This record gives sequence, structure tokens and C-alpha cells, in this order.
Amino acid sequence: MKKGNLFVVSGPSGAGKGTICAAFAQRRPEVFLSVSATTREPREGEVEGVHYYFLGEEEFKEKITQGDFLEHAVYCGNYYGTPRGKVMEVIESGRDVILEIESDGAMQVRSRYPEGIFIFVCPPSLQTLEARLRGRGTESEEVIAQRLEKAVQELGRAHKYNYLLLNDDVEAAVRRLEAIVDAERCYMPRNIGFINDFIKNKEK
Amino acid sequence: MKKGNLFVVSGPSGAGKGTICAAFAQRRPEVFLSVSATTREPREGEVEGVHYYFLGEEEFKEKITQGDFLEHAVYCGNYYGTPRGKVMEVIESGRDVILEIESDGAMQVRSRYPEGIFIFVCPPSLQTLEARLRGRGTESEEVIAQRLEKAVQELGRAHKYNYLLLNDDVEAAVRRLEAIVDAERCYMPRNIGFINDFIKNKEK
Repeated sequence: MKKGNLFVVSGPSGAGKGTICAAFAQRRPEVFLSVSATTREPREGEVEGVHYYFLGEEEFKEKITQGDFLEHAVYCGNYYGTPRGKVMEVIESGRDVILEIESDGAMQVRSRYPEGIFIFVCPPSLQTLEARLRGRGTESEEVIAQRLEKAVQELGRAHKYNYLLLNDDVEAAVRRLEAIVDAERCYMPRNIGFINDFIKNKEK
Repeated sequence: MKKGNLFVVSGPSGAGKGTICAAFAQRRPEVFLSVSATTREPREGEVEGVHYYFLGEEEFKEKITQGDFLEHAVYCGNYYGTPRGKVMEVIESGRDVILEIESDGAMQVRSRYPEGIFIFVCPPSLQTLEARLRGRGTESEEVIAQRLEKAVQELGRAHKYNYLLLNDDVEAAVRRLEAIVDAERCYMPRNIGFINDFIKNKEK
């Protein structure tokens, strides 16, 4: 049985990774979009196991100790993490998995699961990113300045990713993500088993 | 200016690389399908510069000496080759190029242009390949046996290619080739220039 691939989609806040992954998941239900665990309180309408796995802080910390997360981080006083068991189970079943996570988490996954495929979502320019962050209308000038500074820092380690997913247009970006997922299934090192079987079949 | 990519599509006789590349070229006219040079006589309807560049044997040999071919081979007493100048010119202009060539030629290109992307077209099984060769109705049993033997030899070096393009269905195979071409445009090492410009723009 050929294993599924693990795709890690990351990039600066405001780059559009959430929008792209949501649209991708709708078009490609055969790919499993991983659900994160968190210690924050469920918001209205959020469903356990669909939007998040909601855990208590003690429980979350114990899972960290046990190595149950592929990556985790603290954000605004709450823990967030990717459950390793579920992801590995889906991959072993032959299905591809997508994680949409922050870049610190992506770098954790990279060291723990180097056979993953790392995709950096990037706006076409810093000006576009600034306009998008401002367009949300929810962030103060200070927060916008911080996010832009952080975006430039993240760009500085973009070379550690396998692909650049330019988000100049959401529809085009989703199509590019589909192309990356489909192309990686054809990547030769993942198909050596097929080649060997083909040759063995001849020798029978 | 970002250079175009060079895709080399190869694989055993009967695998379907010609059919796939022709269908791809129709769907993706922005990609340049390279035209080979040959010393064989033009067949009826064949147009210079469209189907082949027709050259005299002396001229062809001189071009070999001058390194004017990315790859070349002799087949049934005629020379065939890929003109280096045209391919490089198109790549430099930023356009992607596809070569559909035999596997010996593909290995020549690999040593001369290692940044190329090498795609191995493969039928789903040896039985399918045999049925296809037999279905042509033009080959003797001896030729079919030779081709199958050669196919297995070629499979033995399939690991030197970047991608396996399984031709279980032509339509699906063309879509996979499109995915590979699109994904390679996103490949990070080919986009470091963009990342650097993005960061530089911030520092202005």
C-alpha cells in the first residue's frame, strides 16, 4: 500500500492560506484537511472534531509530553497543536493530508517529518499584504506593522519550503495547490514500488 | 526574467508519450513542444519546422561536432536530434519547453542539462504494453518481443527520472502532465528571485 503524502501549507498572516485550504478541501474531499487541537473555548457553532478538538490545558500538556503532537504552539494564551496519531493513521491508509498551520509549526513538522511537502503561501507583494491586513478592518496600526515585520521574517526562511504558492488570485492559487498535490503523487521516489513490481512481474 | 523549464518526456515504445505530448500541446499552446531535426526524407504532408527540421547527413554530422544538439541518436539508419539553440532561446525567453524523445536521448539531456525535469511515461503493466504493441498490427512477434525486453531495461533506469507518468488513461495522463508542469513553476528553488525581490522591496 502506497502511503499518502503530508502537505504543510503555511505563510504569513494575511497571505490567504486559510481561504486557499478551505476552497481546496471543498474541491478535493479525497484529501484530508487535518483538524487542530486547542485549549481555547469553543465559539458558537464550532463543532468538536470538525473545527477543532477541544482539550483542557492539563490534557493538552500531557499530550505534548507524550509526543502526541506533530507540532504545537501557544497563541494568545491558548495552546494549538496537530494531533500526530490521526494524521499518521490517514497517511498510512494511503490518503493525502493537508495541514494549514503557522510557520513555527511548519518548521517543527519539517524536523519531525522531513518527507512532508512544505508549501509557502505568499501575497504578490508587501503592499498587497498590507492592503489585505488593513482591509480586515480589525487590526490596529501597531498590529499591522508587527504582522508586516513578521511576514518579512517569514519570507527569510521561505527557502526551507518546497514550493512557493503565490496568492495573486485565490482561484489560481487553489489550482496551483491542486497541481502540486497531483504532481507529488507522480514524484518518482514515491513510485519506486510500482517500478519494482512492474519489473518483477516480467520475471515471473 | 525567470527562465522557462525544460521537461523531457520519455519512456518505452508503446507507452503513449507521443499521444500524451500531442494532446498536452493542444491544451497548453504556451508551452513550446520542441521540433526534432532528422536526416530522413520528409513524408507526404510533413512540413519543415513543424514536424521536423530536415537536414542532409553532412550538415547533421557537422552540427553534432559543433555541439548543436542537446541529444541525438541514429535510428534505422537516420539521424535524429534536438536542436540546442532553439530550445535554449525559448527557455531564456521564459517559456517552458517539452521534448518528447527516446530514453537514450533523455539520458544525454540529463547529463548536459541537469536542471531539466525528466518524466517517465509508463503503461500500467507489461501486459498492457504488450496488448498495445500488438494492437498496432504493424509489428512482427519478434519486434514485439524485442520492444518488451527493451521496455523492461528502460524501467530499470526509471529511477533516474523525476516523475512517473502512469498512462492508464490518456486524459488522466495529460492532466497529470499539466499538474507536473504547473507544480514545477511553483518549485521553491526556481522562485528564490521572487522571494529576494519581496524582501528587498521592504528594505527600500
